[in-house]
Amino acid sequence: MSRKVIELFYDVVSPYSWLGFEVLCRYRNVWNMELKLRPAFLGGIMQASGNKPPAMVPNKGLYMAKDLNRLASYMNVPLRHPSDPFEVMFNKGSLPAMRFITAVAEKEKDGGRLLENVSREVWKRIWSTDQDICEPASLSEAGLKAGLSSSEVEELLGLSKSQPIKDKLKQTTQEAINYEAFGFPFVVCHIDGKPQVFFGSDRFELMAYCIGEKWLGPQPDKPTSNL
Amino acid sequence: MSRKVIELFYDVVSPYSWLGFEVLCRYRNVWNMELKLRPAFLGGIMQASGNKPPAMVPNKGLYMAKDLNRLASYMNVPLRHPSDPFEVMFNKGSLPAMRFITAVAEKEKDGGRLLENVSREVWKRIWSTDQDICEPASLSEAGLKAGLSSSEVEELLGLSKSQPIKDKLKQTTQEAINYEAFGFPFVVCHIDGKPQVFFGSDRFELMAYCIGEKWLGPQPDKPTSNL
Repeated sequence: MSRKVIELFYDVVSPYSWLGFEVLCRYRNVWNMELKLRPAFLGGIMQASGNKPPAMVPNKGLYMAKDLNRLASYMNVPLRHPSDPFEVMFNKGSLPAMRFITAVAEKEKDGGRLLENVSREVWKRIWSTDQDICEPASLSEAGLKAGLSSSEVEELLGLSKSQPIKDKLKQTTQEAINYEAFGFPFVVCHIDGKPQVFFGSDRFELMAYCIGEKWLGPQPDKPTSNL
Repeated sequence: MSRKVIELFYDVVSPYSWLGFEVLCRYRNVWNMELKLRPAFLGGIMQASGNKPPAMVPNKGLYMAKDLNRLASYMNVPLRHPSDPFEVMFNKGSLPAMRFITAVAEKEKDGGRLLENVSREVWKRIWSTDQDICEPASLSEAGLKAGLSSSEVEELLGLSKSQPIKDKLKQTTQEAINYEAFGFPFVVCHIDGKPQVFFGSDRFELMAYCIGEKWLGPQPDKPTSNL
């Protein structure tokens, strides 16, 4: 059986993307798959699809806060709400962060472990420790924690402002739009040459069914506690 | 351990509600719970919460059609899309059907098996065999299939037009609004005297974790095929 290619389109501004990212990273060696992390820009997806942030409906916003807390506990992801989610998500946004992460993706030739680690460190800042992700110093700190050297961080920060990296982020976002994405996380499973798409961090059991794998809960190394 | 009360607010116009309904009905005797079926009016929820039908975002509508097909297959629910979903969901709607189902709920004193069967037969018409659910003859046919006698159906059709039944449907809808519902299915689990709410048909694994029960997949009588 050849390994299935599974692409995960995500943006660190999206807390549900973090949950989906951690679950798929945990399944890297559990499912017979090649996981491709695809950092993209959620703002571009929302604009292209005409979708609106769910919290625009007040009851949905209240629910999501509770839902995220429960899911984070169940999935064992240290997610905590920033003190001012509106400011963080809509005013400050994630454009510099996603350009930096795109530079990491471009620089790293294969495997994606560095991309995984940098993405996680940036997520921890915005969605766990309530720290900035827009300033170069913030991204530098995340990069160092992820295992980059000071000189690598400097190079990537420079790259992240270059036209090729800006274009690459646009291109990845366009690829998600081409798959008819309307939000993140957005997962594309390539099965028998056909793409099957899944939105959200709540379709893994269904995804397992569709790709012929087993769902062992969000912590596959501790399946008995979940099932 | 005392039985947990779990309330399911639903409307037959909602296909995701049907999936959630079938899963919870299958768990009636698997989880230590008292399942309370709460037929309500989705139109009232959408208006009160300011929510919009998801298919208003075209990519979301395209995705939902595929998502529902896959989920129906996985969950073993014979869901099929009506030929004109817009006409069925937004022009014709479910008000007469939900009043009829409310009359069944009011007439039946406890257990809810008749309510379960009638709801399912109405769902089959709108979301499986593409048949009308607005005309009295349509509801009558569903009621007969669900095991009601002709005279019971006649009585319930009469009741469904009465003010007390109209008021009861409004009241149940208002109860869902009081729990900050913004769509259906909406599940309220009463745990240690506190309500915990779950939106959608994709939170059962999380729900099991929250209420201290085991998730055995959408077909708990066939767990090995799912896990």
